[in-house]
Order: sequence, then C-alpha cells, then structure tokens
Amino acid sequence: MLQNSEKSMDKVVSLCKSRGFVYPGSEIYGGLANAWDYGPLGVEFKNNLKRAWWKKFVQESPYNVGLDSAILMNPETWVASGHVGGFSDPLMDCKDCKSRHRADKLIEDFTGESADGWSEEKMLQFIADNHIKCPNCGGENFTDIRKFNLMYKTYQGVTEDSKNEIYLRPETAQGIFVNFANIARTTRKKLPFGVCQVGKSFRNEITPGNFIFRIREFEQMECEFFCKPGTDLDWFYYWKDYCKNWLLDLGMREENMRLRDHEQEELSFYSKATTDIEYLFPFGWGELWGIADRTDYDLTQHQNHSGKDLSYFDQEANERYIPYVVEPSLGADRVALAFLCEAYDEEQVGEKDSRVVMHFHPALAPFKAAVLPLSKKLGEQAGKVREQLAGKFMVDYDDAGSIGKRYRRQDEIGTPFCITYDFESEQDGCVTVRDRDTMAQERIAIDQLERYIEEKIQF
Amino acid sequence: MLQNSEKSMDKVVSLCKSRGFVYPGSEIYGGLANAWDYGPLGVEFKNNLKRAWWKKFVQESPYNVGLDSAILMNPETWVASGHVGGFSDPLMDCKDCKSRHRADKLIEDFTGESADGWSEEKMLQFIADNHIKCPNCGGENFTDIRKFNLMYKTYQGVTEDSKNEIYLRPETAQGIFVNFANIARTTRKKLPFGVCQVGKSFRNEITPGNFIFRIREFEQMECEFFCKPGTDLDWFYYWKDYCKNWLLDLGMREENMRLRDHEQEELSFYSKATTDIEYLFPFGWGELWGIADRTDYDLTQHQNHSGKDLSYFDQEANERYIPYVVEPSLGADRVALAFLCEAYDEEQVGEKDSRVVMHFHPALAPFKAAVLPLSKKLGEQAGKVREQLAGKFMVDYDDAGSIGKRYRRQDEIGTPFCITYDFESEQDGCVTVRDRDTMAQERIAIDQLERYIEEKIQF
Repeated sequence: MLQNSEKSMDKVVSLCKSRGFVYPGSEIYGGLANAWDYGPLGVEFKNNLKRAWWKKFVQESPYNVGLDSAILMNPETWVASGHVGGFSDPLMDCKDCKSRHRADKLIEDFTGESADGWSEEKMLQFIADNHIKCPNCGGENFTDIRKFNLMYKTYQGVTEDSKNEIYLRPETAQGIFVNFANIARTTRKKLPFGVCQVGKSFRNEITPGNFIFRIREFEQMECEFFCKPGTDLDWFYYWKDYCKNWLLDLGMREENMRLRDHEQEELSFYSKATTDIEYLFPFGWGELWGIADRTDYDLTQHQNHSGKDLSYFDQEANERYIPYVVEPSLGADRVALAFLCEAYDEEQVGEKDSRVVMHFHPALAPFKAAVLPLSKKLGEQAGKVREQLAGKFMVDYDDAGSIGKRYRRQDEIGTPFCITYDFESEQDGCVTVRDRDTMAQERIAIDQLERYIEEKIQF
Repeated sequence: MLQNSEKSMDKVVSLCKSRGFVYPGSEIYGGLANAWDYGPLGVEFKNNLKRAWWKKFVQESPYNVGLDSAILMNPETWVASGHVGGFSDPLMDCKDCKSRHRADKLIEDFTGESADGWSEEKMLQFIADNHIKCPNCGGENFTDIRKFNLMYKTYQGVTEDSKNEIYLRPETAQGIFVNFANIARTTRKKLPFGVCQVGKSFRNEITPGNFIFRIREFEQMECEFFCKPGTDLDWFYYWKDYCKNWLLDLGMREENMRLRDHEQEELSFYSKATTDIEYLFPFGWGELWGIADRTDYDLTQHQNHSGKDLSYFDQEANERYIPYVVEPSLGADRVALAFLCEAYDEEQVGEKDSRVVMHFHPALAPFKAAVLPLSKKLGEQAGKVREQLAGKFMVDYDDAGSIGKRYRRQDEIGTPFCITYDFESEQDGCVTVRDRDTMAQERIAIDQLERYIEEKIQF
C-alpha cells in the first residue's frame, strides 16, 4: 500500500476529473478561479460523508440536534461576531510589478512558521528587516498593508446602497448562535446540548488552492456544543476524542493524522483551548478540523448586540448563566479530499498487472456494488438484480468490455463489491461477488445479496 | 380529517415556529425580510424530502445520475442562459406615495389572470386604460416601467469593479447544462440520461411571501433529462407521471393537486410543452413543480456562447445532434410547505378531547419513533432502547409528563410510533408501540422493534 508521502496530488486530481468525482466549475467558460463542481461520483461520495457525520453527531448522539439556517443573515450578525471589523487579510501590493500578496503569507513562506496574530506594524517591520522579496518580480518595493475583508457582499432589495448591503455567511456557526434561544425553547433540551449544521459558507480568499482544500465557496459541518461553565474543558476533550474516532472509524490511518494543540499566544483571546486535527496531504500537513473551547464569547456578543437575553436557567443548579461553547468545526471539502487521498492506491497485481484502487470505507463509496452481466445476453436478468438492489443503495451497472476491465473500472472508483451475473445464475439463483480489497470471489444467493452487502457497508 | 380549505395557514406557521420546524431567520436581530431557518425538526423533515427525491430520481432510476455544482459560476453562464438580459421584474413606482410595485402583479390582482409574457407597453396601456390604482395610496400616478434584474450580484477578488462581478445562481439548472459534456464523457452514459441536482438558488424577489412558499434564498431539486430530438414529448409525459406519482406515493391527496398545462401563448418561445403541478395551499393554488420540454435551447445557447461543441454522437443512429431536454424542476421549500399543510390535522378524540396531528408519510417524519419510559426510574433501560434504535433512524426520547401528554406532543410533530417502556418491559422483553394515526397499541418484542419500524417507514 502506498504511503501518503508517495502519493501524487496530480494523480488524485486527475482521477477525480476523469471519473466524475470533481470537475472544474463552469469549465466550458474557462472556469471561475478555483471553483469546483462535484460530479456524479463526487456528489454521492460527499453526501455519504455528510450522512456519516450527521449519523454520529446528530442521529446517534443523545445530546445533539440539527439545524439548517439561511446563508443570508441580518448583517448585524456579522458586526456582533466580529467579522465586519476583523475578518480580513493583510494585503500588500508590489509597486514594481503590481502583483498583490498577503503579508502574513510572505512571512510564513520566509520563516516556515505561522504569523497568526502578528500586528500590521510587526509584519511590515519584519518584511523590511529581512528584505523579503516579491515572489513575482524579486523587488522589495511594497506598499503599506491594507485590510481586505473576506466576506462576499451583496445587496437585497431594489437599490444598491449600504442600507441594503448584506453578506454571504463566512461560517455556519453564527446561524447556530442566533438560534440558540429558539432551539432551547422549542426542543425543551436541557444543557448540555449541541446544535449541528451542514452548509455552504463563502470566503473571498486571495489565494485559494490545492484543489478542493482551500476554495471560496465551501461546505462546513459545524457543531456548537452548549454547556455549563466549568464543564467546558471536559467537553472539549470529549469532542476531540469523538472527532478523532469518527475519522478512524471511516478508515483514516492514525499515522496520517496529527493533533496540534494551539499554544497560548496562538489562541483567540476568548478561547481557553483549541486543537486542530491535521491530515498529511500529498502537499503536506493541512487542517481538517478545529476543536475550540470558545467560552461564552459568541452568545455574550450576540446578547450585547441584539439586546435579547441569551442566558440559560439551570434548574438543577438553580442559577442563570450564559452557556460556554465547545465547537468542533470541520470542512466538508477538506475532509472529502483527505479521504480521497487516503483511499488512493496503486497496486501490483500478480506479476505483470497493476491497478489503481480507491480503498474507501464502504459507507463512503459512491456505489456500494456494481452489477456486471457476463454477456450482454444476460442483460435482462442482470438488470433485475440491479433494480432489486437499487431500492436499497446506489448500484452501478456495467456491461461493456471484459470482466477484468470492468473490475478495474470499479476498483478505480472504489466500489466495494462487483456482482457478476453469469450463465449459471438463472439455474442456481446465485451470483459471484468479488471483493474490491482482497479480490476474493464468493458465490452468493441472489436473495441474500441485499443483506450481505448491507452488513458490510455499516457505519 | 380537515379539508385543505378548512386549514389555516396561521396555525401551520405557528406549529412550525413553536415546535422547531421553521424559525424566522436571524430573529434576534429583527430578522431579514422573509428569510427562514429550518429548526431541529425542520432540517430532518426537509432532509427526508430531499432523500426521498434522490432515491426515486437518482438511486432507483436506471437513467439518471447526480451532480452538485457550485453556486458561484462564471458570469458568462448567465449571459448565455438569458438571465443577464431577461431575468427581471417590471417595476413601477407610485409618484404620490413612493411605494414600489410589480406591474404584472398589479394587473394580475386586477384581472385574476396571469400577465406572463406581456410587453411593457401592453402592461402600461392596460394599467392606464383600466385605471388600476396604487394598492398603497389609491392614486393613479405611476412612473414608467423599469426592469429590475432578480440576480444577486457580488464581487470576487480584491476589487469591486465590473470585471469581478459575479452572481449568485438564480437556478441550479445551468450548473447541469455547463457540465453536460463532462458528465457524458466521464460516466460513459448513452442517451437518454438525466442529471439531478439539489441545491440553493437565490432570487432578489420584490414580493416574497406566504411563509416558505416564495423566499429569496430557496432550494431546488432539478433534473435535466437529455434525449434524442423527436422522443422528447414521450419523455415529457414519462416525467410528468413520475413526478405526480412521487407526490402521491408520499401521501399527497389527488384532490389537493392539479396539473395545469401551459397554453400555447404562455409557453416560452423554445418550449414545446410545459405543465405545472400545483397544490391547494390554505392560501390558494400555488406552483410546486414545473415540467418543461425545453428542446435544444439551453445546450445550443451554451454551445454558441462558449464555442465548445455540446453535440452528442448517437452511435446507434450514426448521427450527431444537440440533445433535447425535459426538465422537471421542483422547489424544495414549496414542496416542504405543501407536505406540512397536507399533514396538518385537528381531530376530535373521544367525547371531550382533541389533538393536533401531523399525518406525515413515515419516510418524511422527523422522528421515526419516540421512546417514552413510563417512569423516570426506567430511564436507564429505556435509554438503551433509544440507543439501539438510534443506530438506524432518528429517535426522540421524552420522559416529561403523563404518557397522554407525551403522545400529544409526538402527534403534533408527526412521530409515527410511540414506544412505551413500562415496568413489565424488563421481564417480558416487550414494549407497547402506539400508532400515530390509528392510536392503536401493540405489544412488540424489543429485539423485533427495529425491523418492525423499518418495514413501516419504507419509501
């Protein structure tokens, strides 16, 4: 099995494009900078990921409930959250070649370390002192830093003035905070409880890149877990473990994962603890999941800005307080990319043959099975097998080319089971089931197929 | 059972808000004109609807595949589709009171009939001839009509100039058309085949309203079905039936549904046939699903604008052509509202009691079952039953108040099965299962529960 360090991003991207996992967005018009569309296989794969998250974080959790709040929110939300004031990149132009750069990135590329939390003055001084050069032309003639807000702005209503200015949400979390009181009241939930949401967010990044790792329109899977102050660190550790186990259970190897605790100086001023779960992509380590103890910062901000009481009355303790929040925040596109990289493998088969195979957890595989009639003459009967299984899960059907070629095509898209309908099948009511990973073959009764597959794809 | 004409929109809305189906968006900040958030029950309900659609339109269909294209597209897409040029409302201001109106709406409110397709001149003339008055002040002093484009505009990149102007998509369909060639190539699908997509679209409507019936940020479930010219009308009838059956299978009564074929003069110039499936909401008939034969209009437009060949080579017929398209386009929020209205009922129970009950199809119900310990002392064992079922589907747990009150709470949110764990349960390994609709009770073995429920919630 290939180590992650031996995998090539180019090969993963090329498989994604050629097999219909991911296409460049609006490609016939030359695309739109780093926008991507999920193709027929990609949408199934990503839906499976989202379902696997929902299953563990909402359906099975005795604490959590779901939410689907709107992308367009009252703009006061983003004043309260700090995004209007502070959600910006420090940009500098090169006066010589007119290219534009992020000051913090220039420093990071120079030092190899994060410049998170540095002041503008500190960055400017550092760039000057160290004679950091324009990566485009090699000059040292930069403008001052100016702040560029990353929120997409739009207008709602019939006039384009500041009164009608609204934003595309840069995160789903705030949709949860503004609904905290509504949810507590209508679900009659007692603390601790969490609220989970899957949805699109938008950030006008200056430098998107690495395929679907950093994109401007992206999807998040966020949970805001509300608890009693003082219990927050316990819950922080609880969710950190829960998140890690979710990744392990879906087949991510521990060696490709690391937990990076934020240092004191790296923490937001309101956060008591933050850990990033990072993954070893072929291009290096990248953040997948941020788990943060955000204290009562968000609810307090919204209470102050809205004038609405967002405190919680704890009947058991007979006291009223603003709940603390632990937030596990996961990027859906990033974790999709991680599992694509994790699954990718090139294998030698026998002496002369090789195959590309995606070792997806069966719960994540786009197709759970492929029905392959040995001959086109068997199309009608094989079609019935497909139809029977399609009532339960996604099934492919392929009758083109040799069985060997069809196996390879299914390996490449990670289908766990290939079901061959042959000339004996009508008589004995059985089909040959071939396992993607072991390539072992087994004869299974057609009326047992559904249960056979269902047991193997459990998550 | 209440007839739809006896149902009150206010009561449906009030139930949605009080039980956590739908909240006003950003409510603590006074909301954002007609934006709505789906609460803990609403998100489950809507996800169930989307899954039921995906199951029938993608998973079980031998023709169709899925897609998830980006909301932000290359703006040339919207030039080609005609949205930049023609996707606008005809607005008039009242010079006396400064209120703003849609000219076509003024006419529709006056005549009771659609003014779709009328020219500006015709509308102006009609309003003048018939002395149509300002609904706000009663005056007859309107400005001329000006076109107001319904697409939300935003800017991508670091400068807000026309070069960087992009739009939030006003429909998901164009994401399918621009990917047609990619999908045909990578899936190796032969015509006829369809591409299905669920996703958010945005229209800056002047007059949103009727709860989640017309909202600015809405979700669509669209299928673009590509076929050989000449076979398009057959497929049009095929999909019309398929859509209608989907609604019937999910429990919509035929009496609350009507199919309205567009008259020749109402059709878009490129459409050969269009039918709207309408639903009888408490506020009147409203469109749910548009099924249209769009001929080769969309692909031809994109071929002309992009310069890319979007024709298809039909090996069987040995000819090359631009496929025709049949489009069933469904509004997810509208159909959610329709099923909420359809399910809502007020019933007399016995002589003195009454209940509000949501008769959802079990596949759509937010919770499939609720576990109710007869006494809090049975919490631990009942919790185990909840846990066991939660591995399979959404389950509620309620231990507060009398069993009768808990039944009523579950009726009101449409939970098909209430499972009471009582003092005999530990001994006999059985629980009492109470049916939402018939209110009949049955004693079921705990280890049979999962299968019992699973069979009943099939879709």
